[in-house]
Amino acid sequence: MSYAQPMAQSAPEKSSVDMGALVECIRACVDCAQACTACADACLSEQQVQMLTRCIHLDLDCADVCAATGNVLSRQTAFELVLTQPLLQACAQACKLCGEECEKHAQHGMEHCRICAEACRRCEQACNELLSTLAA
Amino acid sequence: MSYAQPMAQSAPEKSSVDMGALVECIRACVDCAQACTACADACLSEQQVQMLTRCIHLDLDCADVCAATGNVLSRQTAFELVLTQPLLQACAQACKLCGEECEKHAQHGMEHCRICAEACRRCEQACNELLSTLAA
Amino acid sequence: MSYAQPMAQSAPEKSSVDMGALVECIRACVDCAQACTACADACLSEQQVQMLTRCIHLDLDCADVCAATGNVLSRQTAFELVLTQPLLQACAQACKLCGEECEKHAQHGMEHCRICAEACRRCEQACNELLSTLAA
Amino acid sequence: MSYAQPMAQSAPEKSSVDMGALVECIRACVDCAQACTACADACLSEQQVQMLTRCIHLDLDCADVCAATGNVLSRQTAFELVLTQPLLQACAQACKLCGEECEKHAQHGMEHCRICAEACRRCEQACNELLSTLAA
Repeated sequence: MSYAQPMAQSAPEKSSVDMGALVECIRACVDCAQACTACADACLSEQQVQMLTRCIHLDLDCADVCAATGNVLSRQTAFELVLTQPLLQACAQACKLCGEECEKHAQHGMEHCRICAEACRRCEQACNELLSTLAA
Repeated sequence: MSYAQPMAQSAPEKSSVDMGALVECIRACVDCAQACTACADACLSEQQVQMLTRCIHLDLDCADVCAATGNVLSRQTAFELVLTQPLLQACAQACKLCGEECEKHAQHGMEHCRICAEACRRCEQACNELLSTLAA
Repeated sequence: MSYAQPMAQSAPEKSSVDMGALVECIRACVDCAQACTACADACLSEQQVQMLTRCIHLDLDCADVCAATGNVLSRQTAFELVLTQPLLQACAQACKLCGEECEKHAQHGMEHCRICAEACRRCEQACNELLSTLAA
Repeated sequence: MSYAQPMAQSAPEKSSVDMGALVECIRACVDCAQACTACADACLSEQQVQMLTRCIHLDLDCADVCAATGNVLSRQTAFELVLTQPLLQACAQACKLCGEECEKHAQHGMEHCRICAEACRRCEQACNELLSTLAA
């Protein structure tokens, strides 16, 4: 039910970037930010919260960076490459760190970390794919 | 591809609110925030931007309030009714104002405003439905 | 070093609200959001994190609501009373909840909670004062 | 009245980064985000809004990136260099683009753009100084 695709297509000035890669990256950022926010909260209510503090920290960082990246990408009509490139790199890195940490806890049965790791990996990949089209 | 539902179901402590209404409201907030951010940008690149300044203003307010509401609702494990109620009221109001303004421009052929009005109406309704379950 | 006051005074269209109460509320929201973000992180690194999970939760909610409120108030040129009132009520409530929780931990020697409680009380008061000028 | 310094000093685990550079960067990010949000709104209400659309666009991008950077920096207890570096680079770049654009309009008498350019330059410098201490 995301509006990212129809909104991107309805803009009077389109950016020069690959539309498919852009739309997938916006969606992945938005969904990953929500998953990380929810995962931090679920971790907080686990009995072994002491073992999850790094996970919560990375969830919160990843949520903030994904939300900002999703917003900047949603403003496609005046795409600034010099800003978008380091921001996508930061976002891919935040997702990689958070996804790897969540993966560890997923292996110990934490379902919210398993889902969040999936959201992070998808967003990391979407950022890297958009970066590769920008560099081309 | 939203993770709102599986994340909500995987939390170790569930909130007492209606799960279906909660998940729909989280999704509607997240999608509406993105649509409003994109609509503000599309309006900015329209030739008649002068006629769209109130729309851009309301888009930006609605995006901020929806994003904050989506985050607070995603932290379901310690639901604070005294906070959630006025926040949902503010969010429904932001969506109503923005949706009505976008509707006007949709009638003059602005496709991004038509999509954004749809996102706003859906989010306004989701906030009001969640509010009605909380009051019950 | 906040720019809230000179920015508010330089806007071509001023809102009809009391300028002093508006500027103080913007500053209080911005500063409280930062304090709550930092307090959540400091709580996370405390040894007794298990006892601080409600505090972290309320810090995160308060940070989100204060940030959104500070943004909406910074857009003074098209002030919408029907949105601003419930948003200020939600913000005052978030600050009250978070400030009361932080106060408890401040009494047990948590310096970050003592500072955060101060930021929350100041922001709660600023929201209530702005609300009282709006109702007048 | 910023709480960035006392909050940074009260954290049970301090980051290894230079405290002075960190605190100044947090403050600069928070203040710049607010200035950019207010400048976008002031630009929107100018009669010559058509000439200010790129400025509004860059204001909005800069506000989002500064807010996210200020949040990540406020979570100092588990500083991730691989995330912080590209994020600071993105933030410095957003501030540079927005500051240069605002500077142009400041020269034509736009006071809000003059103040915003000042906020952007200060934040760009603070990001670069923090980056230089991280690289050391």
